[in-house]
Order: sequence, then structure tokens, then C-alpha cells
Amino acid sequence: MPVFKDETLKRISREIFIAYGAPREEADLVSEFLVRANLCGHDSHGVIRVIQYVKAIEDGTLKPGAKIDIIRETGSSALVRGNWGFGQVVAKRAMELAIEKAKKNSVCVVCAFDLYHIGRLADYTRLAAENDMIGIAMVNSTPTVAPHGGRERLLSTAPLSYAFPTGKENMFILDIATSVCAEGKVRVSLHKGEKLPEGCIIDKEGNPSTNPADLYDGGAILPLGGALVGYKGFGLALAVEVMAGILANAKCACEAGKKGNGVFFEAINIDDFVPIKEFKDRIDALIRRIKSSKLRPGFKEILLPGEPELRTEMMRREKGIFIPDRTWNEIVKIAEKKNLDLEAFLD
Amino acid sequence: MPVFKDETLKRISREIFIAYGAPREEADLVSEFLVRANLCGHDSHGVIRVIQYVKAIEDGTLKPGAKIDIIRETGSSALVRGNWGFGQVVAKRAMELAIEKAKKNSVCVVCAFDLYHIGRLADYTRLAAENDMIGIAMVNSTPTVAPHGGRERLLSTAPLSYAFPTGKENMFILDIATSVCAEGKVRVSLHKGEKLPEGCIIDKEGNPSTNPADLYDGGAILPLGGALVGYKGFGLALAVEVMAGILANAKCACEAGKKGNGVFFEAINIDDFVPIKEFKDRIDALIRRIKSSKLRPGFKEILLPGEPELRTEMMRREKGIFIPDRTWNEIVKIAEKKNLDLEAFLD
Repeated sequence: MPVFKDETLKRISREIFIAYGAPREEADLVSEFLVRANLCGHDSHGVIRVIQYVKAIEDGTLKPGAKIDIIRETGSSALVRGNWGFGQVVAKRAMELAIEKAKKNSVCVVCAFDLYHIGRLADYTRLAAENDMIGIAMVNSTPTVAPHGGRERLLSTAPLSYAFPTGKENMFILDIATSVCAEGKVRVSLHKGEKLPEGCIIDKEGNPSTNPADLYDGGAILPLGGALVGYKGFGLALAVEVMAGILANAKCACEAGKKGNGVFFEAINIDDFVPIKEFKDRIDALIRRIKSSKLRPGFKEILLPGEPELRTEMMRREKGIFIPDRTWNEIVKIAEKKNLDLEAFLD
Repeated sequence: MPVFKDETLKRISREIFIAYGAPREEADLVSEFLVRANLCGHDSHGVIRVIQYVKAIEDGTLKPGAKIDIIRETGSSALVRGNWGFGQVVAKRAMELAIEKAKKNSVCVVCAFDLYHIGRLADYTRLAAENDMIGIAMVNSTPTVAPHGGRERLLSTAPLSYAFPTGKENMFILDIATSVCAEGKVRVSLHKGEKLPEGCIIDKEGNPSTNPADLYDGGAILPLGGALVGYKGFGLALAVEVMAGILANAKCACEAGKKGNGVFFEAINIDDFVPIKEFKDRIDALIRRIKSSKLRPGFKEILLPGEPELRTEMMRREKGIFIPDRTWNEIVKIAEKKNLDLEAFLD
């Protein structure tokens, strides 16, 4: 299993996208976000996606360099058509637009449609928090999740993210699927030959299963909340579907031909509600109080949203990122097709 | 166990609040919302609260008739100080303000602080949906929930609500606690002498418990997601805490002397993104597709958010609302203190 420095992976990913026709700055941005996902431990959203994106470029689904159109706009809203450009490129522009408008008008919602996969939501909500704003994001995508009580895949994992600026404490970034688990985690278990924990998926008959292969044989992921309160995760996923699908003028997960993400982004300018300094002092105090909680048996500490990712990132920046052989071999093959010699980019 | 028509309960509640000094229109509104909670089956938020509210009026925590101050305001935002008026009165005004501003400026966030208990969030998000907008609400309150891995009560049940207008289908209103269950449900189990399902609460040592009494003996409610992914519900509760607590200039659940609700409301004018007719057609189609899903063994149908409440309401409007003797006796006592003869209000 090869291990790479993050900068090396970024270079490799960038050169491949350029070889497949992406403008340099788009190749840069997409590679940066993919490698950042690897850095924080979310390998399912890392450079493994280079393979998928290149395929999508080849079959015309993804169009590097596509023009971004703002088709409707007010002081606090915008609707963006991505014309099937890189999700990362369109989404970053959409969040920047939300931040610009929220700076002037306190709050802004920007929705986007006809764009490819945007990757991790935390990359965009973080931009808002870095600008002393609250960042909110929701996306829908292809269907993998059953409604509570159902056994058909009609919803996506429908993730949502909130990011908040802090003072001295680490940034608070929540980025979660509203299903029990993300599809990527099931795929990882499948590849490792491991069983899933109970309560994650059902098989095609709607019975509980711990065999990850059952998901890919007509099964479905369950909504957050399990047998007891699965209607909660289901309701959240459905709300995300409406906001990132219907409001965003994108296809719903259950509609034929759904691809890419529908996007709902929002930025809220904190200073229009409470002074930003006071907000940061209070969120720092809240974080410290929560982290100082007495623990339950079996727990060593309370981890805040974003904290596990930050720790993995610090470790992987130093020790490098492990890429499974299978993934690496596919990346090499893609590069060779364009006569790119990846050896030249290794340290 | 006495049974009442909803109109009778509303009259009784209204006259009691008036006898305790509430302006008639405030007494009207609060009573309407409390009885509506009973109608939809959420008795924990129904007229049982008359007892609590009257106590709060007597001890000066709740101040009927309080002036509502808008202390900061832009085209898309407002911060409202309730001066400890009825939560329902302040919150309804806050959502109306959000709707007015969103009509002009596409999106509006209104936060409110220093107000008493506002009841069910669905009552406010519904107002937005009735105006062809998306309604969003979050509140924090007194602490009952432990962080994931902790055993101290540091968070509230931190509910959130989304309401969406529909065409021919029933309105889609999600209103859920981000904890496994609401405190009211634990209290109901306690009064009925029943065990809780596993995974709802921990005792004061942090061990899992099914005995509702353990919650009131230093235990805590668990965040949504359970042992497997409780960090998700915890993250959501913490996000609600920041938005409805810190951004709203209200106390956090874990701060000394926390009372009432901190409020985050938002209205989004759909027509500034997609034509409202198209939105309604698409949400109708989505609802129909979801409801037509093949079912899992043991399920008879898929229920959409808001649907169980609607069914209970239709039944209770016809058959009346059951009030437990203990609750009724306390209400009678409160009325007698002001020489109100409740018999006069019965049908």
C-alpha cells in the first residue's frame, strides 16, 4: 500500500485533471479538496474520486471549464447553474457568492444545480466560518437510503453541515449524513471483507443485514435514528431533498437520471446579530464546558464536531496518506492513457 | 379522565390566563397553540402547560403583556428581545417579521431571546409555509441531554423544525428533538409506570437505563443516533445551541439560570428560487413517490413528517381531548384561586 505526502498526491491529481482537459486553476482546486478529504480521514471522498471524475469527463457527464451562470439573483439569494462543471468549482463560487451577499445583507441563500459531485460539505461551510459567518450546507445526490418503513432506495444520504467560527478553540464544523452511515463506509467494509454494525442497512427484502454486499444487491441504507426513531433521520433527509433538490432546481434523488449534487448553501453574518468577539468568546466557553463533561463508562473524552478530522489531518500531514494498491493502480492506468509518467511527480 | 372538546379547553385556558393578568389577545393565542398541541397528540405541550405558565406568572418569570423590542434589524435579519413575555406571543411576532422581510428580501433570519416557553416549533414554521415560504426553527432550553460520551446534562433536547408548502398533498412539517426522545415522553412513561425503550436515557453514573425515574435522579437523555452514531445527534444539538443560544443572544442550556427558549427562526421565499407552482407540483410528486415505496416487513405504510399529528388532530377534533385527572384537578385549583368557576365554561 503506497504512502504519499499530501503535496505529492495533490500534484498527481492536478496533472491528471489537466491532462484530461481541465483548466489549471480548476485542477488545482479539485485536487486540493480531494486531498484534504484524505488528510482528514474521509478517504471515500479523497483521490479515489479521480477515477470517477476522469470517467465522467470521458463520457461527457462532467465538463471541466464549464461556464457558471447565475440565473436568478436578489440581495439575499441566488440560483446558480453549473452547466456540469466540477462540483468543487461551482460550489466554491456559490458559497463565495453567499458570503459576499451576506456581508452586505446579513443573510444569503445560494442554491446550485447541474453540477457534478462537490465532495465534503465541510470545505464550503468552513469558508463562511473563516469569514466570521455561520456556514450551512445541504446536498442531495443519487439514491441509497430507504424512507423509514420502506425498502426502496428513494433518498440520498442527504448530508448537512454547519460551521461556526471560534476564538481560541478549534473551528466547530459538523458534517454528517442524515442516514446511519455514508455509502462510502459500507463500500470500505465490503472491500475489507468486514461485517457492518447492526442497524446500518437492510437487504432487498427489507430485513436487517450486516453484510455490506446486501446494499449492492438491492438493499438500502437506513435513516438516522434506527428502529426506534428512524422517522427523525428520514424527516431530515426529506427536508434536505426539498431544499437541495426542489428549491435548488435540481433533480430529486428518486427521479430518473439523477446525477451530481443539488446544493443548498447559506451564510449568516454573525455581527448583524451579536458582536463577533462576544460570539467567539461564548462559543469557546461552550466548547470548553462540553469537553469538561464527566464521562460515561467506556469513553475517554468528548470529541467536538470536526475534532476527529483535525487529529487525523495532523497525523497524516506528518506521516503521509495511505492509498490502497487497487486505487493506486487505477490512477496509474488513467495517467498512462495520457502518457503521464507519475514517477516524475513522486518525491 | 375527563374528555373535552378543543373549543372548551381553549376557553378554559384563555379565561385562566386572563384571570392571571394576560391581555385577552395574548391569552387567546397561547391557549390556541396549547390546545393545538393536544389536538395533534403532543399532550406534553398542551394545556398541562397552563399549570407551569401560571406558576411562572406568579413568581414573576413570565410577564404577560410585556413589550416586544426589536433591538437590531436589517433587511434580512432581526434580533428580538421578548422581555419575558409569553413565548408564543413573542415567537409568533418574530416569525411574522421573518416572513415580512423575506417577502421583500428573499430570506430572513430572526432570533429572539428573553422570552418564555414557545411550545411546538411546528406552529411557527407552519406560518411561513402558509405564506408560500420555507419555515425553519430551532430553539434551545433547559439542559436534559448529555453530550455523546458524557453523563452530564449540558444540552437541551434542541428541537428543530422545517415546514414546506405543498399543492394537493398535506403540508410537510418536520418538528423533532435532536435527542432520542423529548423530556415529555420520559415524564409520560414515569406517570404511567412504564419502562422506556432501550437507548433513550442513562442514569447518573452514565449507564444505560430503561427506568424513567433515573432521568429525574441525575440521569440524562441521549442524543439522536445511539451508541453507534450518537455524535450525529450531539453535533446537531450543539449546532442548535449555537444558533438558538449564542447567535440569538440567549443563555446556553448549560449556563446557570437558563430559562425559557432561545429562538432561531428563518423564512425563505421560494418564488425567488423557483416558481412556487413548480415547487408545489414537485413536492407533491416527491411525497407521492415516497409514500408509494415498497414496505419493510412489519410496516403498513410510510408516514410523512406531520402526518401522524394530522391524523390525531382529525380524530381528536371529533372525539375530544382526554385530560388526565391529575392535570385537570390542578387546573381546577388554579382557577378556583381566582374565583373562576370552570363549570360555566363546560359544554
